[in-house]
Amino acid sequence: MQQNRRKFLSNAALTVAAAGAASLPVQAAQTPAKAGFIHHVYFWLKNPESKEDKAKLLEGLRTLSKVKTIQNFYIGQPADTNRDVIDRSYAVSWLLFFANKADQDSYQVDPVHLDFVKNYSHLWQRVVVYDSVDV
Amino acid sequence: MQQNRRKFLSNAALTVAAAGAASLPVQAAQTPAKAGFIHHVYFWLKNPESKEDKAKLLEGLRTLSKVKTIQNFYIGQPADTNRDVIDRSYAVSWLLFFANKADQDSYQVDPVHLDFVKNYSHLWQRVVVYDSVDV
Repeated sequence: MQQNRRKFLSNAALTVAAAGAASLPVQAAQTPAKAGFIHHVYFWLKNPESKEDKAKLLEGLRTLSKVKTIQNFYIGQPADTNRDVIDRSYAVSWLLFFANKADQDSYQVDPVHLDFVKNYSHLWQRVVVYDSVDV
Repeated sequence: MQQNRRKFLSNAALTVAAAGAASLPVQAAQTPAKAGFIHHVYFWLKNPESKEDKAKLLEGLRTLSKVKTIQNFYIGQPADTNRDVIDRSYAVSWLLFFANKADQDSYQVDPVHLDFVKNYSHLWQRVVVYDSVDV
């Protein structure tokens, strides 16, 4: 079913989708989900081989996830894919969904975010950020 | 409420969340949503100033979105943010969620995807892909 194929991946939404699928509106396949503001950060560690440093960064990101304006977040690592166009040199992917730019701006100066930078930025050598909004 | 802050952004999920919020399980803020497989592609156009070429690429992506294994997709463009770490030189962001790597692999060879490459790849000069899976 369309609505199941398009369902959200959180436990909460899965539960609801399973319970209420019969009454869900069908979302057309060619209609993209509205994202608001997508903030995708890729981290390269100073010590790429250090499992401890990676674990510390993950710990920091889990703390950072408590910022109230974050609607959803996904912590990732490179998948097992390898083509010329794929950059799999990063260590950690940090994908955030915000309702709008104002919420993302607020996140940037949130004390939790400032603490995260203070406490964990020594771990990374490089960060690349892609911010995007609905077309 | 937690479950509302963490809700999915699709119309379908919003409808369900609104209808069933009272009975939703609370998702802890520090528990990231499970993504399965995230495929994020950034496109740079050969003619970055051409609104026509951008519109054509968007048309192609909407067609591409019909691939059955895609769980959710977001078509974006650079947000109005500008810091040293932000790359805002791309034209279009194409963010896909798959259940797993097998579904993404199947997408790569799907006839709809092969047609997309055949019909629209003349529009871009560069593509960068970041594939990530849950940590």
